[in-house]
Amino acid sequence: MNQKSSSLPNITTHFADWYHEVVYQSKMADHAPVRGCMVIMPYGYAVWENIQKILDAKIKETGHQNAAFPLLIPESFLKKEAKHVAGFSPELAVVTHAGGKELEEPLVVRPTSETIIHYMFARWLTSWRDLPLKINQWCSVVRWEMRTRPFLRTTEFWWQEGHTAHETHEEARQEVKTMLDVYVDLIENYLAIPVVAGVKSETEKFAGADLTCTVEGMMQDGKALQMGTSHMISQNFAKVFEMKFQDRNGNEAYPYLTSWGVTTRLIGALIMTHGDQKGLIMPPRVAPYQIVIIPIIKTGSEDVVLNAAYALKKELEREFRVVIDTDETKTPGAKFFHWELKGVPVRIEIGPRDIEQKTVKVVDRLGLENTNVKQAELTQHLKYHLEKIQTTLLERATARRKSQWHKGARLEDFKESLEQQGGFYQTGWCRRIECEDVLKTHKATIRAVLPEKTFSICFNCDQESPSDILAAKSY
Amino acid sequence: MNQKSSSLPNITTHFADWYHEVVYQSKMADHAPVRGCMVIMPYGYAVWENIQKILDAKIKETGHQNAAFPLLIPESFLKKEAKHVAGFSPELAVVTHAGGKELEEPLVVRPTSETIIHYMFARWLTSWRDLPLKINQWCSVVRWEMRTRPFLRTTEFWWQEGHTAHETHEEARQEVKTMLDVYVDLIENYLAIPVVAGVKSETEKFAGADLTCTVEGMMQDGKALQMGTSHMISQNFAKVFEMKFQDRNGNEAYPYLTSWGVTTRLIGALIMTHGDQKGLIMPPRVAPYQIVIIPIIKTGSEDVVLNAAYALKKELEREFRVVIDTDETKTPGAKFFHWELKGVPVRIEIGPRDIEQKTVKVVDRLGLENTNVKQAELTQHLKYHLEKIQTTLLERATARRKSQWHKGARLEDFKESLEQQGGFYQTGWCRRIECEDVLKTHKATIRAVLPEKTFSICFNCDQESPSDILAAKSY
Repeated sequence: MNQKSSSLPNITTHFADWYHEVVYQSKMADHAPVRGCMVIMPYGYAVWENIQKILDAKIKETGHQNAAFPLLIPESFLKKEAKHVAGFSPELAVVTHAGGKELEEPLVVRPTSETIIHYMFARWLTSWRDLPLKINQWCSVVRWEMRTRPFLRTTEFWWQEGHTAHETHEEARQEVKTMLDVYVDLIENYLAIPVVAGVKSETEKFAGADLTCTVEGMMQDGKALQMGTSHMISQNFAKVFEMKFQDRNGNEAYPYLTSWGVTTRLIGALIMTHGDQKGLIMPPRVAPYQIVIIPIIKTGSEDVVLNAAYALKKELEREFRVVIDTDETKTPGAKFFHWELKGVPVRIEIGPRDIEQKTVKVVDRLGLENTNVKQAELTQHLKYHLEKIQTTLLERATARRKSQWHKGARLEDFKESLEQQGGFYQTGWCRRIECEDVLKTHKATIRAVLPEKTFSICFNCDQESPSDILAAKSY
Repeated sequence: MNQKSSSLPNITTHFADWYHEVVYQSKMADHAPVRGCMVIMPYGYAVWENIQKILDAKIKETGHQNAAFPLLIPESFLKKEAKHVAGFSPELAVVTHAGGKELEEPLVVRPTSETIIHYMFARWLTSWRDLPLKINQWCSVVRWEMRTRPFLRTTEFWWQEGHTAHETHEEARQEVKTMLDVYVDLIENYLAIPVVAGVKSETEKFAGADLTCTVEGMMQDGKALQMGTSHMISQNFAKVFEMKFQDRNGNEAYPYLTSWGVTTRLIGALIMTHGDQKGLIMPPRVAPYQIVIIPIIKTGSEDVVLNAAYALKKELEREFRVVIDTDETKTPGAKFFHWELKGVPVRIEIGPRDIEQKTVKVVDRLGLENTNVKQAELTQHLKYHLEKIQTTLLERATARRKSQWHKGARLEDFKESLEQQGGFYQTGWCRRIECEDVLKTHKATIRAVLPEKTFSICFNCDQESPSDILAAKSY
């Protein structure tokens, strides 16, 4: 372990403390002066912007359009759908006064926008020809959470929420699946985090959904993290908002609804999946900076080295996101430490001898490489090498998850390991809440119902299991 | 006047009604179920996304970074700066309850974020080496407005707000100027709206600013519209938030602050500047669709024409934002009307004879051109032609503004014209509030103090005028 990195708590023994410290020391986020809220600092926000750019393109490619709906929702809207209000009312922030007066009807700060978007869908929908409606919104939402952690669970968080209406149940099911696939693609191929896609149990599904699909990741400490959800929304929403249309036969009909979202929690997942004792490790595809250039200045060589470093930056910026650290108050060693903490995947050192020899030194954050590379070959080399880092991160995380993915027929046999070491436990389940509840006594929940069946009976009783589940402790 | 366009109120005689109708009929926005709020529909939001993309790049090029700050601000923060709270408190929406309980301290939904960002700046700032801090945020804010109009003044609106802190007064002044220039560039060169940059009077400046610079446009109905502001924020904010730093001499110092913003109001400006009796006219650089392709189908030619139209779309999409209208329930005429209402700058018609002759018909929304163009030359032609439309829109708006820009020494002589016809009135002003107030009796205000001096005395009294002003009625 690098001596200088001892300022972070031990990642193996004190993961939660390590997480908090690395978030704040790397300036991803800061505490806000409102309970449970965070400020996303520029370095953290740059990751979110990269995620937005990638995901927004995929949302548009799959035929959705962005729009903006009000932040404030009449309280009565949430009350229209009984399960929805039951799920969200304990978490609401309520505006009771505005413009110097008490409001006739309180307004809630949106915890999610189904209700107001469905109200608008009802205005917009007349005929089957108006369908499908496929809308997405990038915004923040507020849920008054009791225990918060930066990125993972905050009172206010940033997200995208997709809301769609379809003519047929089958088309809506396909939409739920399409967007789940988009999330898997984003998370695995850009954030380099392997995820498992499945279905939530009745207990764990979204308040007001018929079906909630989920993508679940496994963090270094053996806890699962829900990283995205895609819901078949109850047709009851269409009914209570009188979202009627004339179908192809001229009859009155209600559309089938979906909603789906991912949040700034993805940034927490990225930190908890890839980080190490030295700090963050950013996957190149979403890294704010893919490359940091450190000029190695010797007395007398200042101008030559700085000029060469700036010229190199200009050259590399054509292809990569690059930062240069010219802070004259810091030693190169202090700079290495600083940019390791921030997880920049590749460091380039350039000094007087490199300039003479027309090379630079390339060092990466994973320790895969520490080589002198000819400047003429640098761009090609870096393209290849950044892809290699991206792939290695996913492979590393996949290997780790494999070691944390256990199979066990009976809770009796794996409950100790589940409680003490964490990890996924694949097993059978009878679908009864009584058995699901038993997991809670071991601090675990059903994270996902899987399509495959390798266990024939429930982990807790002798009844039949229609298909496997994953049980785990979770964030 | 096109007979079909009679569904919009007369733009000359009923401009306000025309504005509302065109906004709703073209599906730029819709009424929201919360007083004074709007829903920005996909077509309107696409304009905002184009504006964001252009402006965000300029904000980053000028050295700023995006971040995200909480939506909810402790009420006490706003009270710290006396002028700021006096300006904003009548407009605040207040959260008094959250998580099922009454809050100890109410939280306001941000009307603007100076206070919470300054609180964070104080946490982040230690030494002159930490300066400048140059932060921007894209978000929505809430101000409880009495009279609202879509895009122009809504209870919730979307904007970017830049906030910066500098070591010296001079550097902060330069920042205010730089961002004002960025806004002028955006508005003139992308939205094709000529603006005048000036300084606000003491009465009109931002609550808590030492100086407010403004960019003002002139709408078709002779009313001015404030389209962006850039402020020197009172150093009092730095003091009340204890935003101290150690300066280069080792002394304790307070930074100089700026803030600047533009809002979704820009979309209203675009509509009110370029629209005509047929509907919107979108400047090509921010148009959601730059080109609409209308297949002209004759019986028997359906497949041939549709295939050619789709192939054309695919070809043109490499360079342009393109939509194709294949709705089989509508006549070509109905489609022309629809896309004219939506203001798509160029329409391409393609029918059996065009396919035979390897041409298409190009018609533009301004009536500059209605020609057959060889398909082989089409991309080049459209590039040139869209630029021509962009330039023509700015020229047209500039010529109109010129006709609405009057000079007059004495209010006595221009007050009737000001009240009845509107327009800018350039005149002199003594800088006293008594004289400024006289304008209000004519429903006008001082929109901007100009740098040049062509009038030596005040429009209302005989005292000296340091420089000219622009008076106008406004939104």
